[in-house]
Amino acid sequence: MVQSDPALESRGLRPLRIAIFGFGTVGSSVARIVAECKPEGLQLTHVFNRNVARKRADWAGPSVVWSEDADAVLASDADVIVELMGGLDPAGGFIRRALEAGKSVVTANKKLIAFHGVELERLAARHGGHLKYGAAVAGGIPVIPGVEQGLAGDRIEKIEGILNGTCNFILSKMDAGAEYAPVLAEAQAKGYAEADPTEDVGGFDARAKLAILMRLAMRVEVDPDEIVPRPITEVTAVDFSYARDLGCTIRQVARAQKTNGNVAATVGPTLIDLHSPMAWSRGTENMVILSGHYGGDVVFSGHGAGGHPTAVAVVSDLVALAHGSRRVEIPSQKAKVEAEFDVPHYIRFLVNDRPGIVHEITGALARESINIRAIVQKAGYPANALPFVVTVEPCKSSALQRALASIRTMDCLLEPPLDLQMLE
Amino acid sequence: MVQSDPALESRGLRPLRIAIFGFGTVGSSVARIVAECKPEGLQLTHVFNRNVARKRADWAGPSVVWSEDADAVLASDADVIVELMGGLDPAGGFIRRALEAGKSVVTANKKLIAFHGVELERLAARHGGHLKYGAAVAGGIPVIPGVEQGLAGDRIEKIEGILNGTCNFILSKMDAGAEYAPVLAEAQAKGYAEADPTEDVGGFDARAKLAILMRLAMRVEVDPDEIVPRPITEVTAVDFSYARDLGCTIRQVARAQKTNGNVAATVGPTLIDLHSPMAWSRGTENMVILSGHYGGDVVFSGHGAGGHPTAVAVVSDLVALAHGSRRVEIPSQKAKVEAEFDVPHYIRFLVNDRPGIVHEITGALARESINIRAIVQKAGYPANALPFVVTVEPCKSSALQRALASIRTMDCLLEPPLDLQMLE
Repeated sequence: MVQSDPALESRGLRPLRIAIFGFGTVGSSVARIVAECKPEGLQLTHVFNRNVARKRADWAGPSVVWSEDADAVLASDADVIVELMGGLDPAGGFIRRALEAGKSVVTANKKLIAFHGVELERLAARHGGHLKYGAAVAGGIPVIPGVEQGLAGDRIEKIEGILNGTCNFILSKMDAGAEYAPVLAEAQAKGYAEADPTEDVGGFDARAKLAILMRLAMRVEVDPDEIVPRPITEVTAVDFSYARDLGCTIRQVARAQKTNGNVAATVGPTLIDLHSPMAWSRGTENMVILSGHYGGDVVFSGHGAGGHPTAVAVVSDLVALAHGSRRVEIPSQKAKVEAEFDVPHYIRFLVNDRPGIVHEITGALARESINIRAIVQKAGYPANALPFVVTVEPCKSSALQRALASIRTMDCLLEPPLDLQMLE
Repeated sequence: MVQSDPALESRGLRPLRIAIFGFGTVGSSVARIVAECKPEGLQLTHVFNRNVARKRADWAGPSVVWSEDADAVLASDADVIVELMGGLDPAGGFIRRALEAGKSVVTANKKLIAFHGVELERLAARHGGHLKYGAAVAGGIPVIPGVEQGLAGDRIEKIEGILNGTCNFILSKMDAGAEYAPVLAEAQAKGYAEADPTEDVGGFDARAKLAILMRLAMRVEVDPDEIVPRPITEVTAVDFSYARDLGCTIRQVARAQKTNGNVAATVGPTLIDLHSPMAWSRGTENMVILSGHYGGDVVFSGHGAGGHPTAVAVVSDLVALAHGSRRVEIPSQKAKVEAEFDVPHYIRFLVNDRPGIVHEITGALARESINIRAIVQKAGYPANALPFVVTVEPCKSSALQRALASIRTMDCLLEPPLDLQMLE
């Protein structure tokens, strides 16, 4: 039986009826917070999940309908669908149907919002419902509400983020000496990484989040596929060793920049200065730095993933809906990701040593007018598998790629050189 | 002439007419951002200031009425009063009259909101207007929107903040070797400190901001006067030297804690670990760490003061109002600040050396069951004016104060011992 909330009723409101789609870690955390904290104006009425019998939780309250019939829940009197299934299908279809029926939707689905957010927001507006997705970027860290409600008065020109906790966990462990394969296995055992880790380590997850932030903060609608991510699997122990000699560490960084309307965006392993805020984030933590034309840098950090932090963002969206708060929908414009960053780079070579190698490499860089910043070669490596590093002053990726295309033809290279952006 | 915004008119809305009260640094920054960025739905129509002739700025647009007649502006067709005069009077009176007339108010006035926020919010609700004060805490850092919109789903149990840029500037400079008086003079010359710096260095400004955060994040309404601030002027160069030996630095920290409904809150100079996030904030930067029962720690940092960052928060509030976004008003309860922190302390003595001093001090601490963590005495100080430090394991302030009352009677003390909380 659906119970009423006297405090709300006296104000002429009735509780929002909530249906959770997907009762995994985050879904059960949402139900747990609602059951424990009893936020004013929220009532969990339905849970949809496949094989729902094994999910049933008495603590969620006697009035919850547990169902494996999505159609029935979509046709019910629930006011809000909380979509926590992830992926484009069937989550997208359920969301569209809920919005078309005039319901509101709260979701943590970054992929769906990155690719279809604009369309879904229009659908919601057309049918009088609301679409909220505060949990889609950086989970428990209120970056999306902060941007929408607290930075709408600024003009955000730059975004830098550690947006994927799995990659940050793996790279911080590798920084401390671990190898990629066992750390990935540990992350999988702890539930930080999926059985197929491609979305995370390949950079696709961070790219979706970056595209969402670009729309909300920079007000540009980009096709996420235009941001080509670099996987963190390219980075090896030797790179952490050289990075440290350069006063840096390596993290997966998502960054975007808007200069005179030109948009640049990349995702991939990046050298960051050990004294920069980015290096503060440990383990699965996330961090976002937004640089505004008027307000300067604003840093957000905290737990970007996990059941409870993500559930906090979902419940906060629900509380905001229950209190009649609306999203601040700043118009955005379509844009192409076609500008280039002009940043310093780290290039690591692995060669079978012979005379003239540095001469040839520096020649190829000079032909593209790329200035060398440092050449670092540590002792202790064998001459027939010698890693060494060249860092270069800020240059366009296109110029660097032309130089690397020429360098790649050198007979002494045991593998293609690894080039990483450096964050300044 | 008031001009209309076609984009809004097509949606049946007209721009919000804005009257700025107080055209100083922040007020003119607000006008500047509105003039340059032309946020959809905002129109500056009035500026009130004493001797307004010297403030008149043509770039603000031809439709602005410049006035030194507050009554006339309050009686005008402005929809929103932006109060940037500060202080309780006459700002409070203007805000009350605006709200009673059904207008909305955006303010950066932390003192007024800390002491009268609840009453003013009720007044706004009664007359159908809105009261927003995103700029009142940490200026350009969206802590208030982040708490209201993104953390309402959590139960915030702890707040730690560097909330006063002036103190952070002074203490970071002292940490680098400067003396208090010349640094204060520099801060005053740069516009970071007032001619009378008491509000800032005495901790009253940070206390007001802490009280506001406690209401929004912990949902407790406290009388700011119950939080007795400690001034940063108690700290000397020798304390920075000893702090560094302990792996710490000193900053003005505002902290609050809610445990089983018991509320503790303090503001004052505090030892912070050099590896803690708090030590990241430099110069006039602010930082807030909120610890949630479900989501863990969330860190916000950036520029907490200055014309432009504060103006970003004000304009963001205006944009949110123009887009129909409402505050998420979570009910709060009245509470007394009467609980005590159970934290480690740093105690610095200045003595005319003689045998038995440490024995007597440790005896006084032992009688209150306070455990010593470390005793540090650096070489190089004269025996007749010898500073040394005792740090103690977590204890209640009341126990420590009893021990110190007994210690203060010792004949060898050249000044009362300085006790500072340590942040762990």
